[in-house]
Amino acid sequence: MDGCVFCKMVEGEIPVTKVYEDEAVLAFLDIGPISDGHTLVIPKRHCATVHECDPRVLAEVPARLGGIAGAVVAAMDADGYNVLSNNGAAAGQVVDHLHFHIIPRRSGDGVFTEWPTYKYEQGRIEEIAAKIRENVH
Amino acid sequence: MDGCVFCKMVEGEIPVTKVYEDEAVLAFLDIGPISDGHTLVIPKRHCATVHECDPRVLAEVPARLGGIAGAVVAAMDADGYNVLSNNGAAAGQVVDHLHFHIIPRRSGDGVFTEWPTYKYEQGRIEEIAAKIRENVH
Repeated sequence: MDGCVFCKMVEGEIPVTKVYEDEAVLAFLDIGPISDGHTLVIPKRHCATVHECDPRVLAEVPARLGGIAGAVVAAMDADGYNVLSNNGAAAGQVVDHLHFHIIPRRSGDGVFTEWPTYKYEQGRIEEIAAKIRENVH
Repeated sequence: MDGCVFCKMVEGEIPVTKVYEDEAVLAFLDIGPISDGHTLVIPKRHCATVHECDPRVLAEVPARLGGIAGAVVAAMDADGYNVLSNNGAAAGQVVDHLHFHIIPRRSGDGVFTEWPTYKYEQGRIEEIAAKIRENVH
């Protein structure tokens, strides 16, 4: 898409540090990493978010995600990793081209320790589930 | 798998608040949410992490992720959402059955604001990329 930084990377107009590429997917290192080996995996065809993507385009990414994540783990000797896709500016999406972060983790690294859970008030969880079920197509 | 809480949910041995179910995938509300409508999507067949899953099992989840995420956004009137899979205890995985969190977000909700990036020292990004490329199969 015109003006999309990631499309320009796919087209070779902006340089990237590639770790994997095939006809459908490009994976490259994030230049502003959260941990060494922080990788971005994108579909070459432009789409913005998980729920707006053509399912065929969306499917292209996870099909490669396992192999790429395995390579990141092996190369970085990581203890684990987060796979994260931020969808929408409210969720921290900066580039409006679907991307999955693979963020290598080590035990006790202190990265992403934030997990601020709470409990639903009585009855609320059922109300919400009913509303979501109505919206599944 | 014996002793797996999510497998027991799939088998109906532990109750869940379902939002979607088909032959391959189960989606239900997290009882310890980070935001209202926080949903977990799991493959019914047990596997632990993205890179250890049989790609056919892994592919079953993202194929449904768009539809479920769209329903969560519509039901919660969300501005965005995070799709997150924690892989390995070091990355915050608590249940060793692959799962994707869908976490609805609102502008300025103050959830997941942590994004502690840094810059690579000169030459380091290329070293790391080469190592990952060697490990992609």
